[in-house]
Order: sequence, then structure tokens, then C-alpha cells
Amino acid sequence: MTQLTPTDQTRVVRGAKRAVYDEATVHAIIDDALICHVAQILPNATPLVTPTAHWREGRWLYWHGLASTRNVADTPARPVSINICHVDGLVMARSAFHHSLNYRSVTLFGTPEPVTDPAEKTRQLERFLDKISPGRWPQLRPINGKELKATGLVRLPIEEASAKVRNGPPVDDDEDYGWPVWAGVIPLVQHRGEPEMDQA
Amino acid sequence: MTQLTPTDQTRVVRGAKRAVYDEATVHAIIDDALICHVAQILPNATPLVTPTAHWREGRWLYWHGLASTRNVADTPARPVSINICHVDGLVMARSAFHHSLNYRSVTLFGTPEPVTDPAEKTRQLERFLDKISPGRWPQLRPINGKELKATGLVRLPIEEASAKVRNGPPVDDDEDYGWPVWAGVIPLVQHRGEPEMDQA
Repeated sequence: MTQLTPTDQTRVVRGAKRAVYDEATVHAIIDDALICHVAQILPNATPLVTPTAHWREGRWLYWHGLASTRNVADTPARPVSINICHVDGLVMARSAFHHSLNYRSVTLFGTPEPVTDPAEKTRQLERFLDKISPGRWPQLRPINGKELKATGLVRLPIEEASAKVRNGPPVDDDEDYGWPVWAGVIPLVQHRGEPEMDQA
Repeated sequence: MTQLTPTDQTRVVRGAKRAVYDEATVHAIIDDALICHVAQILPNATPLVTPTAHWREGRWLYWHGLASTRNVADTPARPVSINICHVDGLVMARSAFHHSLNYRSVTLFGTPEPVTDPAEKTRQLERFLDKISPGRWPQLRPINGKELKATGLVRLPIEEASAKVRNGPPVDDDEDYGWPVWAGVIPLVQHRGEPEMDQA
């Protein structure tokens, strides 16, 4: 099992017992998610966080946007922090204090780099679509040079990374287990609904 | 309909036609979500983004954590950016370029302030739990002074705020509508599953 090496940035401080650094877990949490949240620092020294769809190849996280989008255009040579979080359940304890969420969360740090080679951009965009809908790409009206140029693509190494995972029932204070209130987990489930065909 | 006034930070630049500034829409998107993503700037001048549960009262967004958690402890007097994003559907177009997501997203900017009064902290924590499970608070083992002290609570005014919303079918290039591929929207649905009672 490959372990990622914690750095000062990625060593989990709060809730260290929930920390996970093995690469397979980090990759699985990334792959299960459709969007991530990218934090960057704007030229006026304020933070900005934007949601964006992502995909992964090996040890790289990719995202795209219109070439002028701030988290694509601004990021080269600027550090970002990225979080991906699945909320899997509501943890209902016997005291308010021990209520929690079951979750799987990955936090990344690093400096993204642009991907500009047209062939590689095309290959990555196909990989992205394959994540959403395997085999769809060859069925589409082919991408053209203008569209490819309008699309900004960046990638971040998945190196400075940590995961935090909570699952299982509530953990209450010993003396509270007899308290007369329902306790347990309410799962939160996401699924794809019935496709709605475009009538146009 | 109350409109929030766009600032240089909140004026939506990319996809301006999807921008929404009315307060009711912003509040509804916030209330529908369990977690937000808080971006802050660390003392070493790198960004950090963390997921956290939130709730709202009037024109204030609240979140809490162990008093030492960085997005609670560090935020007073430091600017943050917060995003809340619901992904409602996969938008499958006839060309890769026009694929999209249906979403509801709110971005906030501002400087959080701590809430330290024990009675107000208690009242807000009850409001938070009411968002998750209305009427549960009085059934619980009452919160005690030690727990209240260990809990950090901050709030951010919902003033510098903007929303972006996309819904509906794909928008393809005119000449692509006849392309022989399925096009439409695949809804993404989240629901609460069957509660799992703690067997302890």
C-alpha cells in the first residue's frame, strides 16, 4: 500500500485519528466525486473558492474551464488548496456535542500547471467525459480547434494530499448510552435519476 | 424581491447570464445545503479550503467546530471566501464542448466574527440541530459548560454574495441539433436513506 508522506500542510491536526494517507484511499475518494472546490489567492490578497468538475489520471488531478476562468487562467505558478468531500451520513448521538457527519474528504495542496498541447488536451477531455459517460466521446460531434483553444486545462500533482474519513455509529460519552433518544446514522445517498431527453 | 448589490468581488464575470443576486435565491441555496467550503489564507500565505456544516439565521451564515479548528479559530479578522454548490444534473450535449452541469452555487466573501456569548452559542447550536432534525434538541442529554467552551462558533454576514444557477436542457450549436446522439439531462438526486439505529 503506497503511503503519501504528510507534510506540515497535510498532516491532519484536528481529528488525527481519522487521518488517512494511503494513496489508494485518496484516489478512490477523488474518483468518486464529480466536483472539487479550488481555493486560490486573488491578486488583492483575498481568498477565492470555486467549485469545478475534476478527473484524475495516475497521480494528477485535472480540471478545465473557459480559458479565462480564474481557477484555470490564474492558477499557473500560484498555489491552490483543493478539497473533495462526500457526506455519507448524519450521525445522531445522545448529546448535541457528539453529533457528527460520516464523510470522506481529501485535501490537496500544490501549484497547478497548464496543459497546452492540443493532442494531450483532447485526450484528457475524452478521459473526463469517459468518467461521466463511458464510450460517449466517439459518438459526439467532434471537437474543433476553436473549442479546444477556448478550453483551459490545468493539472495538479496528487502529492501533498491527505484524507479524513469518518464512518460508523455515533460515539457517545459512556454515561449517555442509556439516554432515551433515538441514536444512529441516517445515510445520505446520491444517485442518478431518470434521464430527461432533450426535446429540441 | 431584495437584491444584493454586486461588488467587484461578487460580480459574476464568467457566465454572467447565469448570475443571480436576489437574496431569496441566495438564502434558499444556502439552506438546501448541509456543508459549505471555507477558503482562508494561512499565515504562510498559502490557501486552505475546508468543508464544514453550516446553517443560516437571517442575513448571517454560521458554522462551528472544535474551538481550535482553523476555519473557526483563525478566521476572526481574516477574510474568507465560501462556496456552496449543489450539482443537480449532468447536461449531455451533442458536442463535448457544450456538456455542462446543472447546478445552484453561492459564493460569499467577508470576514467572519466569533460568537462567544454562551446563551447565544447554545441558541445557535439548537438552530443548527433543528436544521438537521427538527425538535431533536430537547430530547438530548443537555449540553454542558465544558462542551460549550470546547465549541467554536463564527458567523459571516451574507452581504457580499452572488449565486449562479444553471438548469434546463443542453444548449447546442444550431447545426448540431440533428447529430445522432442521445442528448438531455441526467438528474443527480440526493436523499436520506433508511436510518440505521445504533446497536450499542
